Amino acid sequence: MSNKPVEYADATPRVRAVYDDIMATRGTDWINNFWKHLARDPATLERIWSNVKQVMGPGALDPLTKELIYVAVSVTNNCRYCIASHTAGARAKGMTEAQFAELLAIVGLANETNRLAVGYDAPVDARFVET
Amino acid sequence: MSNKPVEYADATPRVRAVYDDIMATRGTDWINNFWKHLARDPATLERIWSNVKQVMGPGALDPLTKELIYVAVSVTNNCRYCIASHTAGARAKGMTEAQFAELLAIVGLANETNRLAVGYDAPVDARFVET
Amino acid sequence: MSNKPVEYADATPRVRAVYDDIMATRGTDWINNFWKHLARDPATLERIWSNVKQVMGPGALDPLTKELIYVAVSVTNNCRYCIASHTAGARAKGMTEAQFAELLAIVGLANETNRLAVGYDAPVDARFVET
Amino acid sequence: MSNKPVEYADATPRVRAVYDDIMATRGTDWINNFWKHLARDPATLERIWSNVKQVMGPGALDPLTKELIYVAVSVTNNCRYCIASHTAGARAKGMTEAQFAELLAIVGLANETNRLAVGYDAPVDARFVET
Amino acid sequence: MSNKPVEYADATPRVRAVYDDIMATRGTDWINNFWKHLARDPATLERIWSNVKQVMGPGALDPLTKELIYVAVSVTNNCRYCIASHTAGARAKGMTEAQFAELLAIVGLANETNRLAVGYDAPVDARFVET
Amino acid sequence: MSNKPVEYADATPRVRAVYDDIMATRGTDWINNFWKHLARDPATLERIWSNVKQVMGPGALDPLTKELIYVAVSVTNNCRYCIASHTAGARAKGMTEAQFAELLAIVGLANETNRLAVGYDAPVDARFVET
Repeated sequence: MSNKPVEYADATPRVRAVYDDIMATRGTDWINNFWKHLARDPATLERIWSNVKQVMGPGALDPLTKELIYVAVSVTNNCRYCIASHTAGARAKGMTEAQFAELLAIVGLANETNRLAVGYDAPVDARFVET
Repeated sequence: MSNKPVEYADATPRVRAVYDDIMATRGTDWINNFWKHLARDPATLERIWSNVKQVMGPGALDPLTKELIYVAVSVTNNCRYCIASHTAGARAKGMTEAQFAELLAIVGLANETNRLAVGYDAPVDARFVET
Repeated sequence: MSNKPVEYADATPRVRAVYDDIMATRGTDWINNFWKHLARDPATLERIWSNVKQVMGPGALDPLTKELIYVAVSVTNNCRYCIASHTAGARAKGMTEAQFAELLAIVGLANETNRLAVGYDAPVDARFVET
Repeated sequence: MSNKPVEYADATPRVRAVYDDIMATRGTDWINNFWKHLARDPATLERIWSNVKQVMGPGALDPLTKELIYVAVSVTNNCRYCIASHTAGARAKGMTEAQFAELLAIVGLANETNRLAVGYDAPVDARFVET
Repeated sequence: MSNKPVEYADATPRVRAVYDDIMATRGTDWINNFWKHLARDPATLERIWSNVKQVMGPGALDPLTKELIYVAVSVTNNCRYCIASHTAGARAKGMTEAQFAELLAIVGLANETNRLAVGYDAPVDARFVET
Repeated sequence: MSNKPVEYADATPRVRAVYDDIMATRGTDWINNFWKHLARDPATLERIWSNVKQVMGPGALDPLTKELIYVAVSVTNNCRYCIASHTAGARAKGMTEAQFAELLAIVGLANETNRLAVGYDAPVDARFVET
């Protein structure tokens, strides 16, 4: 268990296996800091990468939409690292400047109306309840 | 200025004009509770509807993606009303059960990795910085 | 240490002393549920009441402004109990419907622009830094 | 649509019109970074400025109280930019050091009692419900 | 993919396998609602249960401490369901009333001092930086 | 009332008394920045120190567990200062690297499942309600 981020050159075979899979899956030749910090605990590195691969892999939503949702959550939570990494990911998947601006506009507006709904204590309409 | 939600039958012409525009824009024949509560302050009703119409109207992202982003923020903020209304909105725009499940999976995972990035204090990689 | 809220009739002298001070300070003849739950742990009851009394008592800001700030935080955090109790407190100190609507409008807008500032990663202007 | 903040010298007439109105409304001769980033998307710049002007302009609450509420939300959300800009705004409107300290004390306490109310699951008292 | 929570009697073998493992691992004879809702998407059910089993299983921290940490996060996020389920889990692992009260006191205080640190913008002391 | 952090050399006797008690209680010879900023308002300094001393002092939970809970809240709230100071505090009380990694894993997972419970709107099971 390390107390520092783990560079590829210093990584154990167990950590390198995950690093290699990240690079192969993404078609890149570098590892970003998030994974190097998780690698301090190899079990967490393996677990989180496995989750990301499963959730963010091919599914019912297209890859760009999935990145936009990730950015929306990260902006709401004020996670600077995650905004930077997933905005880069969205750009790599084709996000335009206009789409980025629209994404932030929706995130801002949703954060506003969330508080208005809460502040006025609006009850859920019967028509919105799944039956 | 009212201290109760405003029903259509009791609304002033100013409030009715917004209600009518909401129903016409959405192709529906009813007003949900959020707007009835905002109508306690007609200036806020007009302002927020104008913002929603501008931000959520046709743009660079497709209508379903925009609703998914709205739900992602609302789940992160734990706004029960907003989750119910925008999930209904997403279903009306074609969201399938598989897409809903995938949306929640991404929202959950992003909330998890946001905290891991913060907890490990991972610095933003130079490659992620826009230049 | 109790696992239930503590009614006045069942309270120990230690808890009653706090309840009596709450009612005397506020000029009321009842105790709201928040305090009855804190009373499960008398040390917490005493400590929190002492803090509230010190922070919310006469000071540099007028009593109504202090309640408005309390409501603003509670709406942002989505604490339904706290919104209800401090909105009642603000009304008792003279808050009008127009002021309540304006408060919620500011809270909503601040939550929106907070995310825009974060999403666009705007750096703090040098002029804003205290020197 | 730009991918960089927009300086006045580089701004289109549409963006300059908003910048000019911001400076005229505030009686200042500079534009802070928040607006320069929003200006990457002129429609968002216009919309958010219009909202800020309407919500933060003369109304039912005095200008200083409105800024204090804005700071309270920004501290709760941990938005460093917004805390810096709205604290500067509050000081410009007369906020004293004692008022700033009291504001932060209330914000801190509200964040604490919000969690105590939630953790103990205190039900809303019937007397707090508007009827 | 279901749009309703999945009862054991109606579950597919894939879902039942997870339910059975949950009950066997916990030594209980029932499934709580959280899992029944996740079961709408069997892949999410399997993934989250696998994560919970790995993270909350035997490790470097004792089982009660792990539950207390879970409750602390859930109270901060205002997740009523999670507070109820993990408080029950903590009691089952031996949490006393005094420990529960102390847990909530710490959670409340941390939420308070978090905002004071942010509001006063205290820089991280050099001595706190890992080297 | 100061607008700057207060160094020991510049402190009034009232502030020094708190600083001395902090150092004596902790067995250290320095004051971290958090307290120097609070000292801008001596009443807040005294009040918060008194709360920290009471809540974080000997009680029903062991000192390391209390620090872990503090870190869990601080990570969830994204308070960088508080994460740094309380992680240092936890290490001083014996937290190992493996415990730190496990703490962050739980915090991340709880933030994920909190949103899944909210997104699926799982109702609290009757068995979880205290009676």
